[in-house]
Amino acid sequence: MSLIVTGSIGIDTVITPTGRADNILGGSCTYFAAAASFFCPVRIVAAVGEDFPSEHMAVFEHFNIDATGLEIREGSKTFRWTGEYHENINERDTLDVQQNVLAEHLAPVPESFKDTPYVFLANTHPSNQLEMRADFPEARLVVADTMNLWLDTALDELKQVLQQIDGLVLNDSEAAQLAGDTNMVKAADAICAMGPKFVVIKKGEHGCLLRHAEGFFALPAYPASQVIDPTGAGDSFAGGMMGYLAQTDRTDFDAIKRALAYGTVVASYNIESFTLDRLREISRDDLDQRLAELATLTSFA
Amino acid sequence: MSLIVTGSIGIDTVITPTGRADNILGGSCTYFAAAASFFCPVRIVAAVGEDFPSEHMAVFEHFNIDATGLEIREGSKTFRWTGEYHENINERDTLDVQQNVLAEHLAPVPESFKDTPYVFLANTHPSNQLEMRADFPEARLVVADTMNLWLDTALDELKQVLQQIDGLVLNDSEAAQLAGDTNMVKAADAICAMGPKFVVIKKGEHGCLLRHAEGFFALPAYPASQVIDPTGAGDSFAGGMMGYLAQTDRTDFDAIKRALAYGTVVASYNIESFTLDRLREISRDDLDQRLAELATLTSFA
Repeated sequence: MSLIVTGSIGIDTVITPTGRADNILGGSCTYFAAAASFFCPVRIVAAVGEDFPSEHMAVFEHFNIDATGLEIREGSKTFRWTGEYHENINERDTLDVQQNVLAEHLAPVPESFKDTPYVFLANTHPSNQLEMRADFPEARLVVADTMNLWLDTALDELKQVLQQIDGLVLNDSEAAQLAGDTNMVKAADAICAMGPKFVVIKKGEHGCLLRHAEGFFALPAYPASQVIDPTGAGDSFAGGMMGYLAQTDRTDFDAIKRALAYGTVVASYNIESFTLDRLREISRDDLDQRLAELATLTSFA
Repeated sequence: MSLIVTGSIGIDTVITPTGRADNILGGSCTYFAAAASFFCPVRIVAAVGEDFPSEHMAVFEHFNIDATGLEIREGSKTFRWTGEYHENINERDTLDVQQNVLAEHLAPVPESFKDTPYVFLANTHPSNQLEMRADFPEARLVVADTMNLWLDTALDELKQVLQQIDGLVLNDSEAAQLAGDTNMVKAADAICAMGPKFVVIKKGEHGCLLRHAEGFFALPAYPASQVIDPTGAGDSFAGGMMGYLAQTDRTDFDAIKRALAYGTVVASYNIESFTLDRLREISRDDLDQRLAELATLTSFA
């Protein structure tokens, strides 16, 4: 089955304790789509400016991503983000953000994309997510991401989103804020009561927690000794997860569990390089091998 | 096989967001021994003062703990600790500490205890751990705990301890400090290079990570919605782990993995009440049932 993702495509400058990379391809849509492309046909809907470099465009071709919905908007500039990671690479500061084209109207969803059964609403303003959601009334599975900014500034719209999606993916501090509870088990219960059938709480180096009507599932992160750049870890995690579900065309509890394991594995490769360099080197076989490794190192049978 | 633990026995006052408990039985040795008692015969070596209440003594009897090595020292007072947990129950402040008997000489190890094959050196000054270590030259497995205080004040002695033990248990911030690295995989490697054959990094609500010569193992915490008092979680985790190893008389990688799962399960019960109240209510069957549940909720096969 095919999978569509709507979100940001950006030009990032990333500074880490071990290096820096200037003007690299980034954005939630980018990381998600590349990760998902190991599993199923992927379509993107996003806008960039006329400054968007052609070598970045070539990356989408490399991953066989259908970029029919990628609008290169004349007179606009591409979203830009500059961030610096701390010595403890789980923490970072945003040094600069230029919303540019993201502050304008959405890119339209091509008519040919509106039959896509698997839909991921990557992190954007909840109003945009609602508008995008309306374009896929027949979707089999709709999952959204969000961020603390919208919890602070657009909570009502976000709560509307929650009533129109099957699953929500967010990180632990966002879950605590949304639910008003620092206990992740209770927070997950509270969020499910707001609408979604399941919620996935991302905990970075500590793995993830899934709350589903049928129960809980918890997974540690893959033990990564070589973290070059964590940017896009959460997006590639979600991409691996959604890609696996679309590929198998399953939305049941067991499938979501295994999907989270694939998400974990793709994210573990993603953080081994800046931008998509590492993901460009690997194949589905590499993902399957590391999945087997992850199964072994979490099993105590 | 029998298991011995040397560490603190204290009288705690604990304040949490949902309640408080005054003058309850606490201490690393106490929580460890109670947790281990579900698996194997447990011996303790520790000192309390003449103020130690008889009802607390009865708790050791309840768990069939051999208290031959528990010295009630005349003229001394029992160690006391008062702590308050934050609204986020993973954080706490120590409001008061009275070392009392812990600042004096160690309780002697009874001659009849010196053949104990499984030894746990709970968190005390590394000099004390070295002295205790010397009492068990024939031990099959010696594991120690430590804390940030000794990293700051007794690092040389702690490094001597590391060369005389099989395994070290410590939390993630301590591991980062000891290794000088916030990446837990690299920190675990660095600590193993200091002497122990394996290291267990405790991450509280995020579970644990095992580094062993044969590989890594990672386990999430049991999803706990009802955290009444986290005091002793790490000690009961270590107690469940060592108890299982002593019971099965195994020290191999697979056994340690399963031991960590039992540790996780005992700790998950421990935090459901103040002091040992919850552990007093449960049986080994309860532990086995929750172990099976933990296996299910971490499996994506």
